[in-house]
Amino acid sequence: MGLKGGPTQDEVMAVSLAKLGIRPGDRVADVGCGTGKVAVAAARTAERVYAIDRRPEAIACARQEAAAAGAGNIEFFEGDAVDVLRDIDRLDAAFVGGSRRLPEVLDLLAGKVQGRIVVNAVMVGTLHEAIASMQRLGIFVEAVHLQVSRSAGIAGGMMFKPINPVYVIVGGAGCS
Amino acid sequence: MGLKGGPTQDEVMAVSLAKLGIRPGDRVADVGCGTGKVAVAAARTAERVYAIDRRPEAIACARQEAAAAGAGNIEFFEGDAVDVLRDIDRLDAAFVGGSRRLPEVLDLLAGKVQGRIVVNAVMVGTLHEAIASMQRLGIFVEAVHLQVSRSAGIAGGMMFKPINPVYVIVGGAGCS
Amino acid sequence: MGLKGGPTQDEVMAVSLAKLGIRPGDRVADVGCGTGKVAVAAARTAERVYAIDRRPEAIACARQEAAAAGAGNIEFFEGDAVDVLRDIDRLDAAFVGGSRRLPEVLDLLAGKVQGRIVVNAVMVGTLHEAIASMQRLGIFVEAVHLQVSRSAGIAGGMMFKPINPVYVIVGGAGCS
Amino acid sequence: MGLKGGPTQDEVMAVSLAKLGIRPGDRVADVGCGTGKVAVAAARTAERVYAIDRRPEAIACARQEAAAAGAGNIEFFEGDAVDVLRDIDRLDAAFVGGSRRLPEVLDLLAGKVQGRIVVNAVMVGTLHEAIASMQRLGIFVEAVHLQVSRSAGIAGGMMFKPINPVYVIVGGAGCS
Repeated sequence: MGLKGGPTQDEVMAVSLAKLGIRPGDRVADVGCGTGKVAVAAARTAERVYAIDRRPEAIACARQEAAAAGAGNIEFFEGDAVDVLRDIDRLDAAFVGGSRRLPEVLDLLAGKVQGRIVVNAVMVGTLHEAIASMQRLGIFVEAVHLQVSRSAGIAGGMMFKPINPVYVIVGGAGCS
Repeated sequence: MGLKGGPTQDEVMAVSLAKLGIRPGDRVADVGCGTGKVAVAAARTAERVYAIDRRPEAIACARQEAAAAGAGNIEFFEGDAVDVLRDIDRLDAAFVGGSRRLPEVLDLLAGKVQGRIVVNAVMVGTLHEAIASMQRLGIFVEAVHLQVSRSAGIAGGMMFKPINPVYVIVGGAGCS
Repeated sequence: MGLKGGPTQDEVMAVSLAKLGIRPGDRVADVGCGTGKVAVAAARTAERVYAIDRRPEAIACARQEAAAAGAGNIEFFEGDAVDVLRDIDRLDAAFVGGSRRLPEVLDLLAGKVQGRIVVNAVMVGTLHEAIASMQRLGIFVEAVHLQVSRSAGIAGGMMFKPINPVYVIVGGAGCS
Repeated sequence: MGLKGGPTQDEVMAVSLAKLGIRPGDRVADVGCGTGKVAVAAARTAERVYAIDRRPEAIACARQEAAAAGAGNIEFFEGDAVDVLRDIDRLDAAFVGGSRRLPEVLDLLAGKVQGRIVVNAVMVGTLHEAIASMQRLGIFVEAVHLQVSRSAGIAGGMMFKPINPVYVIVGGAGCS
């Protein structure tokens, strides 16, 4: 569907989910869910996933992904993350793949999430904003810079082609 | 216990397990299991994990890890991987964290593993050997170069410290 | 001498000098010169290099490096870069290996440097500050993230060991 | 001109030239010179550069680059590097940007080059071949993995876009 940013790359999703540490029974928010790829993956372990995006085409795409994967435990919210999150009373983990108003989103998440909050950032400004917000809230755990390159066959051999580097910023209540 | 190589780093393990794609019911081999970290993680989803290492101190350490994690579905084999694998008749996935005689190990695995085979390599020679063996066997899928850097606080700010880059080489029957 | 930060790594220096594009006849500032390594390298092409550091032990070390290399065209300034730069009327290029008061330093350099200004940063905050300052001054050209790993022999083979990633931020009058 | 591989990237060229350590008076070979970019850069310091490529369109392009840069000290050879190198009796440094028959080229260079030999490789097989050849010849010094990402402005911010990682393999007579 050509959503801006495209789906989270497999390796980045694997690391992000590992940092989230979702357990059976968990309620998980996917903020800026885009194509729904992370929501569907999280729904394999979590009891309930809240997939939030303000773009109707993202929610439509994510619904389709969820249906195709047989994931019946995802609730979809088309709207601004700040508004949607206000109405959710408790979360065990939250993934932020993209969002406007990131500091406000992190403020809200810090008050509701029992476990880990993981932000993916490609922009330097977002990295800075995520770390500064988490440090202000006293929940910053770590940031990881992931540089993934994949093999590609070319005439007579194999080389590595890099994908865009991603920052994975991790926070958690009481972990700082 | 100071095993050579040390435990697989979290981010590398996350990517390796994602590439393995272990499902409930699977039988999985962990070749060169070292501290047992990957075996224990795999045992959360797999039905049975075969943890193999020729070093008694590795098997002792891995047993302890498994016990601490309450993982009762891991079988331990102290011995040469080639000998041990000969006696296992079917596998759904295999992780090779380290091994002597890698080409022979991959020969055996190619004949027994229904799903994915994932090799972790830090040495250039091992990367080359793993790819060449998988290509010869017609099971090469892809290789990924993972460069992970983690935030570290220093006076007045935060920087990124890199861990050793790792190659994750992926094979699978009938995927090449 | 154990100066904080240590000397600029060869590969990072090579890229930084290439971005500076020093030509014969140039006057070049090395702000936060540390061990003097970059000043000495720049002095091979430049007509005159101003090496500035507020730490007496850095200036002592840099003087020694310059003497050992037979570089007679370096002037040393022990003091705060902002104070020292005020008294220098024209520069063709400037390298900032480290500095307190980076925004003020860049303000001054933007007004005096005819060619390129190159900042090396390992901290995320410094990256952010350098880019923001250069954008405010209308001189930002580009930023480069350099991840260098070097071969290291280990038992039975060769692996790659990474050095700390460095950001090279490039500015120049009238280039933005 | 759309030559395969394209010109050596600035940052990779800067590191490669720094490893070569060309001095005034040096005679330098550029094997697989392509667009001539490295030959022209080397010619700024070297006394004489031998630019070799078996593709007529590469030699034509390199001649044009040299003329545009006013580099009158480059000799061009259209032909197989092995044949051309046989007729050159002494070299101070050699850069190999690409070549068929790499082991034979390195055999020849090892016998003629007084200083450094630097190979750029993007393919894993070339990396392996370059290291193995240099080790066999007793001239291997080091290999460096360069991962460069450059800033790119996107809506509302700045991110880093990676270029293809390159291996820089360094050899030298009597250095191993």
